[in-house]
Amino acid sequence: MVDLPLKLISMTKIDFAPGPSQLYFTVEGHMRRAFKEGFPSISHRSKKFEEAYQRATQNLRELLSIPNDFHIAFCGSASEVWERSIQSLVVENSLHLINGAFSKKFYETAIQLKKKPLKIEVSLGTGFTAVPSLEEPELIALTQNETSTGVSLPLSYISDMRAKFPNAIIIVDAVSSMPYPTFDYSKIDSVFFSVQKGFGMPAGLGVWIYNQRCIDKCKSIQAKGMSIGSYHSLLSLHEFTLKNQTPVTPNMLAIYVLGYVAQDFLNRGIAAIRKETEYKAALLYQTLDKHALIKPFVKEKEARSKTVIIADFGDNTNSIKEKLQAKGLFPGEGYGELKKTQLRFANFPAHSKEQYELLVDVLGQ
Amino acid sequence: MVDLPLKLISMTKIDFAPGPSQLYFTVEGHMRRAFKEGFPSISHRSKKFEEAYQRATQNLRELLSIPNDFHIAFCGSASEVWERSIQSLVVENSLHLINGAFSKKFYETAIQLKKKPLKIEVSLGTGFTAVPSLEEPELIALTQNETSTGVSLPLSYISDMRAKFPNAIIIVDAVSSMPYPTFDYSKIDSVFFSVQKGFGMPAGLGVWIYNQRCIDKCKSIQAKGMSIGSYHSLLSLHEFTLKNQTPVTPNMLAIYVLGYVAQDFLNRGIAAIRKETEYKAALLYQTLDKHALIKPFVKEKEARSKTVIIADFGDNTNSIKEKLQAKGLFPGEGYGELKKTQLRFANFPAHSKEQYELLVDVLGQ
Repeated sequence: MVDLPLKLISMTKIDFAPGPSQLYFTVEGHMRRAFKEGFPSISHRSKKFEEAYQRATQNLRELLSIPNDFHIAFCGSASEVWERSIQSLVVENSLHLINGAFSKKFYETAIQLKKKPLKIEVSLGTGFTAVPSLEEPELIALTQNETSTGVSLPLSYISDMRAKFPNAIIIVDAVSSMPYPTFDYSKIDSVFFSVQKGFGMPAGLGVWIYNQRCIDKCKSIQAKGMSIGSYHSLLSLHEFTLKNQTPVTPNMLAIYVLGYVAQDFLNRGIAAIRKETEYKAALLYQTLDKHALIKPFVKEKEARSKTVIIADFGDNTNSIKEKLQAKGLFPGEGYGELKKTQLRFANFPAHSKEQYELLVDVLGQ
Repeated sequence: MVDLPLKLISMTKIDFAPGPSQLYFTVEGHMRRAFKEGFPSISHRSKKFEEAYQRATQNLRELLSIPNDFHIAFCGSASEVWERSIQSLVVENSLHLINGAFSKKFYETAIQLKKKPLKIEVSLGTGFTAVPSLEEPELIALTQNETSTGVSLPLSYISDMRAKFPNAIIIVDAVSSMPYPTFDYSKIDSVFFSVQKGFGMPAGLGVWIYNQRCIDKCKSIQAKGMSIGSYHSLLSLHEFTLKNQTPVTPNMLAIYVLGYVAQDFLNRGIAAIRKETEYKAALLYQTLDKHALIKPFVKEKEARSKTVIIADFGDNTNSIKEKLQAKGLFPGEGYGELKKTQLRFANFPAHSKEQYELLVDVLGQ
């Protein structure tokens, strides 16, 4: 395998956009091996595919400490999980805590599916502290890491929600934070993410983790005669995941590669990855806090995401972006209306300490 | 690029399963170039992604002679198009012509989505000749090539359906026949396929082609206050495809590779590909017809698929499969209940004339 050209490229251009982002350095090798093994041509009902499926789920289970009473299934994207979870888990009302574009889209999905969702909305860049007072909803959708604003929910807040609403299904969007958060799975019922963020992979796969309460709720909705969706309803996904299969031909290559990337993360050690994530985040926030021309967008320290770090650059956005790019450092643009005044920095396992040290050096100049 | 190992493998193992199937020989090279260009790390909202999207749709348009009043969008799979088309195009009733497992699943999707579909079912291995007499349905779902039974609908039958039911939306499942059929687009409203069959690519992308009538129907359903789905409703897909984008982060690599494979097919010439498909099909059917121990599953010559050729091997299934495998020729198993007595042979552009000549030689021995 001659992978020198890729290495040269990743030395000269480092992608800090929060997904698709910098590829994890082992990804291309895994992809090449898949081709060498003839994996893309095998049947998705074959033993060999089931092995790849099992490798992916077992390694994820170990890496993320997912308890045995939680299951893992695959969708085309995390956005698909927004839809499937509303279809499969909500009769009428879900509660959405909105603090950015993606938590808002989850809420809008529920409206499009003709449910009657509730929302609590705060201004961009701020987090949630008080647990809301309202009647217990069927499902609570929490965006643990809002990719558009860099606001993160403290895990203690999720526990507080559970204490207040013990019967609601709590589903957590951790799209741009996994594998960093150390979830207490007794406080949630479901969590999901996509592979092009923290796992440093090409886009095209969503990972949906869910427990027996979700399965039971889905069955109860089906028993009412309501539609829970079709081939990708939770029950259909669940039936097949028990066999290490998918309901229909999936993005097989992505499942194959995910199994090996999760193994690479295990070899490196999840504790080391989390510690490094915290080190890199501290480095960048410190630089931003001290900087004369730049300010972190999220003011409350507790609400600052460790994995998607956003700063206000105001009139200097373009000039600083150009300065960074000249050194091979490519930040993501601000999201939506904040495109022209903000830059976003992903802090994923694919981003090394050395790259972050270079980043803060250049920002500090 | 050192791709000798792959070539050696494809010389020693030829996959005839009808999808995932043999990779088209250029696919791995395109995939490697994508990595070399850093494509998996770019934003799906970037100019560079839009270019890849446009390359894919323009080359498909040219290759398949898709008229300007038809549009092209991407889903995660062809199964997803079953669901999205029912959600977006049917208020109450669709008509399904069932002659195998996949046409049946399309029908079942409509039931799962709480519509009231009608079906006309024939026994496995037989086709449709007479146009049914019934009230005009909203949508007619035709499986032009049934992957489970190797039965193909003659294009004239589709025209007859259009003549009889001019107001119904006609949607055609061409999952395992594209790019072979020469559709008359004035006789259909929509057609779809997946890339792991005739395009010889890794699985994980469905291609949905649809016209203005579909868009209008979807708008009318939305106007009634009914749900048309969410991020992958036809209207959402359509809004983004006009910008050469997708509603959410898609399987970007697959869209990239598809653009180049379609270009390779254009370079080879669609007429040549179709002629070669017919030559290879004739070769295999001739051998099957003459063989003492094997019989083609589909008896009516007009209903025989050119791209998925299925034969009854009875008690000899295993011994003949082993004989083929010893020569590096790997057929697909029979589908479902026919697993033990049938073998399936894909006849896609990835399968060369020489490979088919070897196949009939070994079968004839």
